[in-house]
Amino acid sequence: MDPVGEKPIALYLEDLHVGQRFTSDSYHMDENRIKALAAEFDPQPFHLDEAVAKTSVFNGLSASGWHTAAVAMRLLVTGGLPLGNGIIGLGGELAWPRPTRPGDTLRWKARFRKYCRRVRNRTRVSSWYEAVH
Amino acid sequence: MDPVGEKPIALYLEDLHVGQRFTSDSYHMDENRIKALAAEFDPQPFHLDEAVAKTSVFNGLSASGWHTAAVAMRLLVTGGLPLGNGIIGLGGELAWPRPTRPGDTLRWKARFRKYCRRVRNRTRVSSWYEAVH
Repeated sequence: MDPVGEKPIALYLEDLHVGQRFTSDSYHMDENRIKALAAEFDPQPFHLDEAVAKTSVFNGLSASGWHTAAVAMRLLVTGGLPLGNGIIGLGGELAWPRPTRPGDTLRWKARFRKYCRRVRNRTRVSSWYEAVH
Repeated sequence: MDPVGEKPIALYLEDLHVGQRFTSDSYHMDENRIKALAAEFDPQPFHLDEAVAKTSVFNGLSASGWHTAAVAMRLLVTGGLPLGNGIIGLGGELAWPRPTRPGDTLRWKARFRKYCRRVRNRTRVSSWYEAVH
């Protein structure tokens, strides 16, 4: 992502400020990839079979939530959030409020919430991400 | 996972009780798969290149946290947590306290924490999972 209205650059701690927003590029959710990823990591019928998915709580085929999360990481890492030395997650809260469908185009919005604490020569920052379908 | 000391069966709501524990089968983290998944979803040097990873905070090659999370889902879905109608996550808290390495064998422990709330004809349950390396 570029800082809104600025050129993409590698960002370091001094470049970040609370409330700063980023928007990622977009990613197309391909049906075959949804099924292949689900077959490997989340082989449940509503991620694999349209007919069964129609009768499920999803009312249609949907991507595994872990696929959606992994795509978010890709979008952040490949320019979405250009942190100088990379992005390492320690953890956080995660929510899947609605399904990701084949053919969806995903984009992520991120916002820095706060600096957490400094551990040795690293500072932890808290940020918030939202997928836009 | 089997309920400890019992045969694997499909579990329904009435079979669950707070504090109930499950343990999954194990999964071997293959180095090539770690790199391939990282190349697709988390292409950062410490997931792709041993030499760079040695100089990183991980002090060696590590799997993307999303790979570890996806393996957890596989272990739950393929018998680890045999819920009758499948496992759908609405969200939760996630932490990666230490890296997953090539060659690691992962196993998951789960414990039901509480019933959350009943929405239409579905009941949400809260559970806790921990990877054991």
